[in-house]
Amino acid sequence: MGSDNRAPVTVVGLGSMGSALANAFLDKGHPTTVWNRSPEKAEALVAKGAVLAATPAEAIAASELVVVCVLDYRAMREIIDSLGEAPAGRVIVNLTSGTPDEARQAATWAAERGVGYVDGAIMATPPMIGSEHALIFYGGPKALYDANAEALASIAGAGTYLGEDAGLPSLYDVALLGLMWTTWAGFMHSLALVGSEQVKAEAFLPFAQAWFEHVVNPEIPRIAAQVDQGTYPDGGSALGMQAVAVEHLVDASRAQKVDAALPEFLLERAEQAIKQGHAGDGFASVYEVLRKARG
Amino acid sequence: MGSDNRAPVTVVGLGSMGSALANAFLDKGHPTTVWNRSPEKAEALVAKGAVLAATPAEAIAASELVVVCVLDYRAMREIIDSLGEAPAGRVIVNLTSGTPDEARQAATWAAERGVGYVDGAIMATPPMIGSEHALIFYGGPKALYDANAEALASIAGAGTYLGEDAGLPSLYDVALLGLMWTTWAGFMHSLALVGSEQVKAEAFLPFAQAWFEHVVNPEIPRIAAQVDQGTYPDGGSALGMQAVAVEHLVDASRAQKVDAALPEFLLERAEQAIKQGHAGDGFASVYEVLRKARG
Ligand SMILES: NC(=O)c1ccc[n+]([C@@H]2O[C@H](COP(=O)([O-])OP(=O)(O)OC[C@H]3O[C@@H](n4cnc5c(N)ncnc54)[C@H](OP(=O)(O)O)[C@@H]3O)[C@@H](O)[C@H]2O)c1
Ligand SMILES: NC(=O)c1ccc[n+]([C@@H]2O[C@H](COP(=O)([O-])OP(=O)(O)OC[C@H]3O[C@@H](n4cnc5c(N)ncnc54)[C@H](OP(=O)(O)O)[C@@H]3O)[C@@H](O)[C@H]2O)c1
Repeated sequence: MGSDNRAPVTVVGLGSMGSALANAFLDKGHPTTVWNRSPEKAEALVAKGAVLAATPAEAIAASELVVVCVLDYRAMREIIDSLGEAPAGRVIVNLTSGTPDEARQAATWAAERGVGYVDGAIMATPPMIGSEHALIFYGGPKALYDANAEALASIAGAGTYLGEDAGLPSLYDVALLGLMWTTWAGFMHSLALVGSEQVKAEAFLPFAQAWFEHVVNPEIPRIAAQVDQGTYPDGGSALGMQAVAVEHLVDASRAQKVDAALPEFLLERAEQAIKQGHAGDGFASVYEVLRKARG
Repeated sequence: MGSDNRAPVTVVGLGSMGSALANAFLDKGHPTTVWNRSPEKAEALVAKGAVLAATPAEAIAASELVVVCVLDYRAMREIIDSLGEAPAGRVIVNLTSGTPDEARQAATWAAERGVGYVDGAIMATPPMIGSEHALIFYGGPKALYDANAEALASIAGAGTYLGEDAGLPSLYDVALLGLMWTTWAGFMHSLALVGSEQVKAEAFLPFAQAWFEHVVNPEIPRIAAQVDQGTYPDGGSALGMQAVAVEHLVDASRAQKVDAALPEFLLERAEQAIKQGHAGDGFASVYEVLRKARG
């Protein structure tokens, strides 16, 4: 398909991520209009064929599809509010990171202005943008997503529509980030434990990697299945027994004088699950505690 | 090698793990003496050729190598103390789970009784015992370990000697268990987040698995290397920026009414690392906080 057939797009926000998005649209032949608060960031893109709009209003007038990627939702709303009434038929695809509630409020706010709104969450770094494997989650009216899916495929091959709720992309986003940081924190806590006896991280690493591969990761799909079923069969290691080992972890963390907060959290939650009757169930029964706000 | 050449062994404690250990020794042709507080648990082993000792003293008299695997260190000490003086040249290999300090105290206690002591931690379930891949960590006097390494290979092919400190096996044990529970808790927290919008765990699972494979796990060796170097270069995503996303996670957890304690812990630790000057470093700089007991 020649570049003449590519939908025009506008990219608002040219930080490291917005610049990568505009670059990918240009690479795939989309007529691309850009705007950034600090206009100098547009120079390389203009040299490549982008049109620099002088104002947000001009930028939004240029294309029906307007991709926004700025620091936060506040900046996004300031920019769009500054332009008064938007021309008819505009769709904002907001790839700014935030919370599910911010995304839902932005959807309501856009609807009040007669602007179509799809929220998105970018699960990739700037260098990955434009590749087939880059993942972006989308949420909002299905018809709006479908009408723009082909153009959006230019920035991320693995675009995934999650549903009508504009809050879902941010929800998936923070959920994945949360398991990432938690896993890293757990690994670093284990390094702190062995490091307290001068064991090098490099020496412990092969054991940790084998443990992840053979013990930790294979349980992930089983935990998911148990959570969906709402039953947590003990796979030979009941929570009541495991809690004793969690206590060893707490005691060892304190005795070795490393941060014991993570083990203490695990022990409290295991004990709460036991109190709720899960002593004979597996570790996944702790889900019944985690899924509720603390009283 | 015929079974005549196999070293005699005694196994004290015939719970699910002790029975598996005795079974593996018998399978590999070791003359095996067993003792358990409740003698009926020895029946199947006796049918297979084990000798049931009437008392702990008889059991320990039968073999120089005495493998103990009971509920906890207290039970282990009660049993051994009950027999008065042990015959010369005995080596206790204690595979009971506990804390590093319990193991170190047991080593001192054994030395006072003129008994050789090697501590061990079993990183396997009973059905895995006897296989080439089963992993047991050992710590204690190297000469004692070396003298018994061949016999111990009958219960776990992947026996690993960690050093003279009898506390190391338990330290590695709780460290690996800790990263296991933490990773599972992080995954369950993410399921709780998406589950609060009726997203099935099964629907979220493929994203989580791809995320583990392509984003979370590849960082593990890099974190280890940074921890050993004591420098935490920002790999394109500075802690100061990531902390904003951790705040989104905290806010989303509260708004979706799931347990927010884990995200709150992550945010507190990120903020402490930032306060210590790591805003421009990578996430691994949080190690500098985790390695110290809280003030
Ligand atoms: N970088 C990543 O790896 C990554 C990955 C996934 C998601 N994201 C998300 O993508 C978004 C942008 O990230 P980034 O890396 O591009 O950040 P960045 O390099 O810091 O750029 C921030 C952008 O926001 C603009 N901005 C900030 N405040 C503004 C305001 N009040 N009015 C108008 N414009 C304002 C900046 O304009 P100026 O140039 O004038 O300052 C700049 O274009 C963030 O929500 C981020 O969480 C980033
Ligand atoms: N099972 C596993 O997957 C696994 C994995 C790694 C490590 N471990 C560790 O291995 C050890 C044993 O576990 P297990 O699964 O075999 O437990 P278990 O099935 O509950 O067996 C407990 C054993 O301890 C004995 N015992 C308890 N209190 C005693 C006392 N005061 N005096 C004498 N004997 C006493 C029991 O004797 P009676 O039969 O008379 O009650 C039984 O032989 C534990 O430290 C456990 O953490 C187990």
